[in-house]
Amino acid sequence: MRGRFITLEGGEGVGKSTQIAYARSLLEALGQRVVATREPGGTPLAEAIRALLKGETGEGMDADTELLLVFAARNEHLAKVIRPALQRGDWVLCDRFTDATYAYQGLGRGLPANRIEALEHWVQGDLRPDMTLLLDAPVELGFARVAKRGEAFDRFEREARNFFERVRAAYRERAGEFPERFRVIDAARPQADVSRDVRDALLGLLPAASSRSDAEDADA
Amino acid sequence: MRGRFITLEGGEGVGKSTQIAYARSLLEALGQRVVATREPGGTPLAEAIRALLKGETGEGMDADTELLLVFAARNEHLAKVIRPALQRGDWVLCDRFTDATYAYQGLGRGLPANRIEALEHWVQGDLRPDMTLLLDAPVELGFARVAKRGEAFDRFEREARNFFERVRAAYRERAGEFPERFRVIDAARPQADVSRDVRDALLGLLPAASSRSDAEDADA
Repeated sequence: MRGRFITLEGGEGVGKSTQIAYARSLLEALGQRVVATREPGGTPLAEAIRALLKGETGEGMDADTELLLVFAARNEHLAKVIRPALQRGDWVLCDRFTDATYAYQGLGRGLPANRIEALEHWVQGDLRPDMTLLLDAPVELGFARVAKRGEAFDRFEREARNFFERVRAAYRERAGEFPERFRVIDAARPQADVSRDVRDALLGLLPAASSRSDAEDADA
Repeated sequence: MRGRFITLEGGEGVGKSTQIAYARSLLEALGQRVVATREPGGTPLAEAIRALLKGETGEGMDADTELLLVFAARNEHLAKVIRPALQRGDWVLCDRFTDATYAYQGLGRGLPANRIEALEHWVQGDLRPDMTLLLDAPVELGFARVAKRGEAFDRFEREARNFFERVRAAYRERAGEFPERFRVIDAARPQADVSRDVRDALLGLLPAASSRSDAEDADA
């Protein structure tokens, strides 16, 4: 059976890394094989493309070039990591995927959705995540968390706050557009509460009895 | 008036660099402003993408990733160099452009033309070269010339010969498909004969009397 493709989305400081680590340990405890990865990146070439994307200021690079690079990295990630993992029957947990492109490059940088859709179709064909967990929290809260772990957010403070408000709104709009695929999780709550929602969402995707039989200590 | 966009195409060792240098000096002697550039490359970011393309063996990188990177570099080149030059009224002489993508990635690597067309349209819209000079010569001859200037072609010798035969055939097919735009120039002849054909092709694109008035020593 083809594996499950789960993406985690959300703005800065919403706790994606923490919840991916939690989801991985939960699924492994349930006897599943898990590949945890991230975008842009996930292969040596895709990481090199990521470096190009991060190296340029948003201003310096043409917005269409940025979008083509994002999808070049994604194509390589799909070809080398994600599709092979799904074919092996593994679960893939991906920190950001195409919804992030709609939120960041689309709404954030003003690229029309139909331009993004054309590349999404070109690269992915019909492949979409089986489930997307949107960790949603007020921008202020995410900022405060990032500040707490010592990452510099000064340069953002003003304009960036507005940008991330738009990104958050774009994510919520995507979730409204694809309610079957999205689970919106209130990430303003304590981490354990967020993890409980993540767990419930993932358990709903597990094949019923059979595949739990090879899980040891499945009652996490 | 918008400048002229001229591309030079052809396989290895057909003399593109030499003819671009010739075309540049001719046009400048005729009082035209010229931007000579190349693909993939032409901007710092596009050159960085070129390095990614060259760094990977053809085997290692997914063919679709390669195509997206080629068009990412092209988009940046168009946004930062080619379109602004054309808007200023300059001539743009470009060593390889999208026809090379059809020849190398398309026929050479077996990517379907309609996949390339989709990205061509996405990136270029309606922009096409005003004229494409295809320097056409037997593969053997190009190989011999490259060998003479000391570049190693050993690793090619066998498989590569077949590859470059396919590339040459693809170029000629493109020329047959777009006869209005293409000039096929027999590059097996001495360099001076090739330059004479390049000159005739370019003179045909010059605005008649008016713009020659500010050319000094126009009778090259």
